Amino acid sequence: MLWTRKDLLGLEELNREEIELILSTAESFKEVSTREIKKVPALRGKTVVNLFYEPSTRTRVSFEVAAKRLSADVINIASETSSVRKGETLTDTGRNIEALKADIIVVRHNCSGAAAMLARHVKISVVNAGDGWHEHPTQALLDIFTLKEKLGKIEGLNVSIVGDIAHSRVARSNIWGLTKLGAKVLVCAPSILIPPGIEEMGAEATQDIDEALRNADAVNVLRMQFERDEQNAFPQQLEYFKNFGITQERLQKAKKNIIVMHPGPINRGIEISSEVADGLNSVILEQVTNGIAVRMAVLFLVAQAQDKKHEPSPS
Amino acid sequence: MLWTRKDLLGLEELNREEIELILSTAESFKEVSTREIKKVPALRGKTVVNLFYEPSTRTRVSFEVAAKRLSADVINIASETSSVRKGETLTDTGRNIEALKADIIVVRHNCSGAAAMLARHVKISVVNAGDGWHEHPTQALLDIFTLKEKLGKIEGLNVSIVGDIAHSRVARSNIWGLTKLGAKVLVCAPSILIPPGIEEMGAEATQDIDEALRNADAVNVLRMQFERDEQNAFPQQLEYFKNFGITQERLQKAKKNIIVMHPGPINRGIEISSEVADGLNSVILEQVTNGIAVRMAVLFLVAQAQDKKHEPSPS
Amino acid sequence: MLWTRKDLLGLEELNREEIELILSTAESFKEVSTREIKKVPALRGKTVVNLFYEPSTRTRVSFEVAAKRLSADVINIASETSSVRKGETLTDTGRNIEALKADIIVVRHNCSGAAAMLARHVKISVVNAGDGWHEHPTQALLDIFTLKEKLGKIEGLNVSIVGDIAHSRVARSNIWGLTKLGAKVLVCAPSILIPPGIEEMGAEATQDIDEALRNADAVNVLRMQFERDEQNAFPQQLEYFKNFGITQERLQKAKKNIIVMHPGPINRGIEISSEVADGLNSVILEQVTNGIAVRMAVLFLVAQAQDKKHEPSPS
Repeated sequence: MLWTRKDLLGLEELNREEIELILSTAESFKEVSTREIKKVPALRGKTVVNLFYEPSTRTRVSFEVAAKRLSADVINIASETSSVRKGETLTDTGRNIEALKADIIVVRHNCSGAAAMLARHVKISVVNAGDGWHEHPTQALLDIFTLKEKLGKIEGLNVSIVGDIAHSRVARSNIWGLTKLGAKVLVCAPSILIPPGIEEMGAEATQDIDEALRNADAVNVLRMQFERDEQNAFPQQLEYFKNFGITQERLQKAKKNIIVMHPGPINRGIEISSEVADGLNSVILEQVTNGIAVRMAVLFLVAQAQDKKHEPSPS
Repeated sequence: MLWTRKDLLGLEELNREEIELILSTAESFKEVSTREIKKVPALRGKTVVNLFYEPSTRTRVSFEVAAKRLSADVINIASETSSVRKGETLTDTGRNIEALKADIIVVRHNCSGAAAMLARHVKISVVNAGDGWHEHPTQALLDIFTLKEKLGKIEGLNVSIVGDIAHSRVARSNIWGLTKLGAKVLVCAPSILIPPGIEEMGAEATQDIDEALRNADAVNVLRMQFERDEQNAFPQQLEYFKNFGITQERLQKAKKNIIVMHPGPINRGIEISSEVADGLNSVILEQVTNGIAVRMAVLFLVAQAQDKKHEPSPS
Repeated sequence: MLWTRKDLLGLEELNREEIELILSTAESFKEVSTREIKKVPALRGKTVVNLFYEPSTRTRVSFEVAAKRLSADVINIASETSSVRKGETLTDTGRNIEALKADIIVVRHNCSGAAAMLARHVKISVVNAGDGWHEHPTQALLDIFTLKEKLGKIEGLNVSIVGDIAHSRVARSNIWGLTKLGAKVLVCAPSILIPPGIEEMGAEATQDIDEALRNADAVNVLRMQFERDEQNAFPQQLEYFKNFGITQERLQKAKKNIIVMHPGPINRGIEISSEVADGLNSVILEQVTNGIAVRMAVLFLVAQAQDKKHEPSPS
């Protein structure tokens, strides 16, 4: 099978074969980062623009490292210093980047649908690095890649996602990706953080953390954001940890080899205990490593789809 | 003819041959950005420092892309994080960059004359990326490059520049460049935004937008800045658009193939209507594309002038 | 002798041979920055992460240039945009960078001991780019490199360090390095800025600037920080300059060829007069040039120590 999309906007629109193609491409790129010279010439002479309207060091750095290991030139644009402040629309910014003859825009934006909107208005590739509460496809792909690497398959797995499901693009992308590959997804959160219509996405929901852990092959622990109101944050955090925090004690009642994932950065003692985060079940740092391979694969595939279009048709 | 200047500070000091040399060099570099591998080794092993005391994503990114396509190493220094905050003088900052054995400083500064002052104090090349209200030579060069590409020549053209002429380095550089190449320049603005002495620069002035458009082969629309006082900005913007905004209706009365240019970022509905910005007469995005070629040419020429000096004299 | 440390954390822990190895390695790298193509492939395919929790353009840029001249890929992370704001611990940030398969973390942090702590928690190399009031080893190494280059040796030299010794990591690193190489160090400051126990580090102290200059082969002038309280800064600065400022008049009474050093950025008229800063005794800009060579050496040596570990043992 061949990748034909110029963009990666979300996992909702991908079929199983496309997701599997990204995963298998990532597998072959993973080896590059273990070499003494961690570089392949795949995207030499291409320009990748990281266009970040929200600060996100982790995702930006991961894409930047991935692009550089593919020998691309990388340009970072952060909202703080960008023309956005001068009132330029996202579309105009995108068209300007296209006019620079850049090849790929990696975009992080606080509005759902921003990446898709941008992709409609430029001919070059757009990779969604997180759009509002909508999708964060490369995060879900690296989660799934890690799961598959650890457990050999996705089909038939029970995966629980714990945390603020309602506002989580990571949860949404994981649900789309996992269910397409045949896993069962159970989300777990206080009722107020479970979005209506979750069942229509193919997931089930519970407010009972022990139920979420009981049959799970893996648990994906979401970062809890209490930052906005620092005065009241502490009691809320304690309460959340008591009711939903992933602790060694709770893991005792789960499958022995349950995989513990987290998109990071982790809040020790809020959504996860240090013991678990650093424990034998945790694959949190392996997720970071796999993020490079997955993003190399995505950048490579969308760039290749662009190049195909410019090839002369066979005579 | 050979380029001999170590710096590019403004178009006022250049003669016609020098401007034409930059334009023809840019022509040959333009093709690089259409290749599959958009890179030439011209500045390999050279260090280009972007020293920006004013935020300007567009110009910084354009220079960064240009330098990387020439295979240079690029270092970005933004005023927000620089030693400037620690009170270091521009001259000391420049001498420190020179001591790093950098080859070219691309400087953006809010003071007129900053680039020239810096150039006097360092032996390495200085490229002015905009100094106060004084000059923005690479912007004017890309405007002129685009005009020449579209209309085949500059000699004898009528070019109108519309907007805040008094505070515009883009207008000043365009006037110097265009008149040296034999074009006639007409500036158009409310009287308060037309600087005294504009005729001595070789341009004529009008407050009548229809007159400015009537015989123009091209109109260069400047960005209007109303940001400082957001309360009163909206009525001022409406007023400005009514009296000076470039609309399709106004273009009806101009030459059919009039070229519409804008240095960006554009304010849709303030100095230009969306219809015009996205219309057939607009070359706004081509300007962005040409900016890469022009900046590659400038970086290449000033670097070459440096290298010439270090060559042994022929025996 | 072979370099075996994965990290460079400070000069206190190094022995004389190790310091001399860095200096001699730097000597051979210095030539690279004088070439037309200022680049060697030593770290090609390696990833160097600049992790800066304090703003420091000078040090960041110097490390970035050094790494790029070694052909490494460089990723900049500044605290303003980093996960730090999201409450991630330094250790977690370090482990995440390690998981990206980066090779070297260059860290600047406001807490003494931060680099050492980080180094204990990651297997990759850590280079201290300044930790609180503790150490700034590459600054001291470039000071010592410059001294040796100028005077042929360090053994037996009299070096005075003038300024806020108590809060200066530059002073501390210089004292460790210079005394290990056999120089005598005399620190000079108002009594309140001389830390207790300075003699135990191997230095002597005086409050008399003329005494500090009398027998000195070199004087290292520290930057004075009066920024915090701008209201009262000016009279304090005048007072400081009167009592401790390095002026041509004071240098008259010193050795004729006394070397004047400063880590920069300099405050003209506060700790040093312009006449001295720009005068014949000053090597301030040569220090900046040598900083590249020293940092290339350090990055090269710690990377090599890493690679050695992965080599198969000889059969």
